[in-house]
Amino acid sequence: MYKILSTDNMAKAAEFTTPYGVIQTPCFMNVATVAAIKGALSSIDLKNIGTQVALCNTYHLHLRPTDTVIYEMGGLNKFMAWDGPILTDSGGFQVFSLAHRRKIKEEGVYFSSHINGDKIFMGPEESMQIQSNLASTIAMAFDECPPALAQREYINSSVERTTRWLNRCIVKMKTLNSQEETINKKQLLFGINQGGICVDIRISHAKTISNLDLDGFAIGGLAVGETHEQMYNVLDNVVEFLPKNKPTYLMGVGTPENILEAVDRGVDLFDCVLPARNGRHGHVYTNDGKMNLLNKQYEKDERPIGVDCNCEVCKNFSRAYVRHLLKAKEMLGMRLCVMHNLYYYNNLMSEIRTAILNRSFKEYKNKRLDGYRL
Amino acid sequence: MYKILSTDNMAKAAEFTTPYGVIQTPCFMNVATVAAIKGALSSIDLKNIGTQVALCNTYHLHLRPTDTVIYEMGGLNKFMAWDGPILTDSGGFQVFSLAHRRKIKEEGVYFSSHINGDKIFMGPEESMQIQSNLASTIAMAFDECPPALAQREYINSSVERTTRWLNRCIVKMKTLNSQEETINKKQLLFGINQGGICVDIRISHAKTISNLDLDGFAIGGLAVGETHEQMYNVLDNVVEFLPKNKPTYLMGVGTPENILEAVDRGVDLFDCVLPARNGRHGHVYTNDGKMNLLNKQYEKDERPIGVDCNCEVCKNFSRAYVRHLLKAKEMLGMRLCVMHNLYYYNNLMSEIRTAILNRSFKEYKNKRLDGYRL
Repeated sequence: MYKILSTDNMAKAAEFTTPYGVIQTPCFMNVATVAAIKGALSSIDLKNIGTQVALCNTYHLHLRPTDTVIYEMGGLNKFMAWDGPILTDSGGFQVFSLAHRRKIKEEGVYFSSHINGDKIFMGPEESMQIQSNLASTIAMAFDECPPALAQREYINSSVERTTRWLNRCIVKMKTLNSQEETINKKQLLFGINQGGICVDIRISHAKTISNLDLDGFAIGGLAVGETHEQMYNVLDNVVEFLPKNKPTYLMGVGTPENILEAVDRGVDLFDCVLPARNGRHGHVYTNDGKMNLLNKQYEKDERPIGVDCNCEVCKNFSRAYVRHLLKAKEMLGMRLCVMHNLYYYNNLMSEIRTAILNRSFKEYKNKRLDGYRL
Repeated sequence: MYKILSTDNMAKAAEFTTPYGVIQTPCFMNVATVAAIKGALSSIDLKNIGTQVALCNTYHLHLRPTDTVIYEMGGLNKFMAWDGPILTDSGGFQVFSLAHRRKIKEEGVYFSSHINGDKIFMGPEESMQIQSNLASTIAMAFDECPPALAQREYINSSVERTTRWLNRCIVKMKTLNSQEETINKKQLLFGINQGGICVDIRISHAKTISNLDLDGFAIGGLAVGETHEQMYNVLDNVVEFLPKNKPTYLMGVGTPENILEAVDRGVDLFDCVLPARNGRHGHVYTNDGKMNLLNKQYEKDERPIGVDCNCEVCKNFSRAYVRHLLKAKEMLGMRLCVMHNLYYYNNLMSEIRTAILNRSFKEYKNKRLDGYRL
């Protein structure tokens, strides 16, 4: 299911075959929180901007419209009219970042909905059941994501509980995939490595979960407060202890610079809200660095956002026009910036893959990093 | 320039040739207030939903990004990347509806910007200059739009001033179109009939302006407080006094029912913010009437918005999905509803034209009105 096509030092170009299509890695998954990309992009747009995988959020969909509604509608692919792979997170991250009055117990987490305060319980079995209802291609194990800079002692006990939860996820997923009424009986399961910036805990945990029957391995709990150097240090030490014959996924990362550095350390999969969130604020990515389109200097700038970009936005509209839309608070301004940014990321990944296949990744990486520093 | 292809009682199917393309009438012009359709639709989308003419607002564009910026960017067509005809209103309507502390004098209107309170003056010459800078295909004369139910005496003096302003518009437009630096030297000018619901004033005004050298004639000052019956009564009496060899434009109208009735009374052109505004609130048009997608009954409705609709939204997405997006306040929900609604209007006009060409308009009109009453 996971086949490496080429390596260039630690960087890998691979094919990851899923029941909903082949993912060419390294790949940036586009975040469609509630089954839609924020910024008015639909699944039709995703095709046009070169998206390979949509990532949806279990916590949000569980609350609204609820996973049971989506199950009755035939699963996420049918619901959002997207025929490619979908990865769902486990809900854990949002339970810790969004929910009110959460309480962690061995069985799972008790919390109150951020929408209406409803009391909810989510543990490994509940997360697997919800993700099975959503019928995503790849389900993520239910874990705790402790703050990166939490006390070592807390991280240690948290990681041990995450391992116990992972085993419960595996058991529950097997059961669900064997049930007649399950929509996607070939749902894949990824485990998540945790341990904050404590490299020894990370390595020990990586070794433990590598022995489990999982379809891929994520590195979670990064990009949550630590420095870039601390993140790269974790990758430098941990990636080698994850299975070579399975994809490696760095959760919630990141900037184009982060992605280039992480690919160079052996990572296959990424996701991040940055390009869409920045786009909604008029911050756009180019090979010459990030640009704030609200700046006065773009008022009469007839050039496209990216002078060498082939996206629909850059082929049709000027910086002056997009800036005007943003200043006038027209939704179209946000849409065009988000479209451009996601295309930029997807195209960056495509160029990265080509560079690895050509064994010229270092050169490509340095060219891009030099451009971003301009 | 205006050629009638077929008539069916008072209804006409015609071709109106402009420097930016041929408009098939009856036609609904899609409102792109600040050079963008509200609801995140771009000029690329307009092509896909069958838009023939984009309508932009002079008042809004004069304030932001300013008509001089758009002039420097090469005019509205280039600025918004739309290669079809554009009609600009005169700014008069918004001066009266949006601006603060306005004061009407013989020379024009003094008012304060609704954005930042700046003091601005706009008269016939200023409106023509701004519209020439915008380089729209069709400019509208600067008029006063009095409340439909204003006192007869006020309407009378207002209409007389509107006539004097119209003559100044014609003089100014001739000058502008003859200047070397003008972007669109073939800019067309439409006059506007006013008179509230006073049919005799309307007719007298229609006769007066019919003698002037204009490219088309609008009926303004309707759909601003009077009943539908009062509006139809004005059309029944006034349309026949407007030139037969020029297009007739009913400004700011309306619902599908209004449009069917007005076509039946000889109107060629329409514009209205309704389909986009309603779409942004989840109210969508179908051949079976208007539907509020926020209603609980659509929570698990797998059907498209219009069961017989061929728009991209209906070909791909269910009512349940669009409702979910609206409930979650995702911009995509608004975009999809606006796309559907504008497609619905544009397609309605296309069906109306076909019916007139086939001399079966009455039958078509009654079928649609019966459906809306369901």
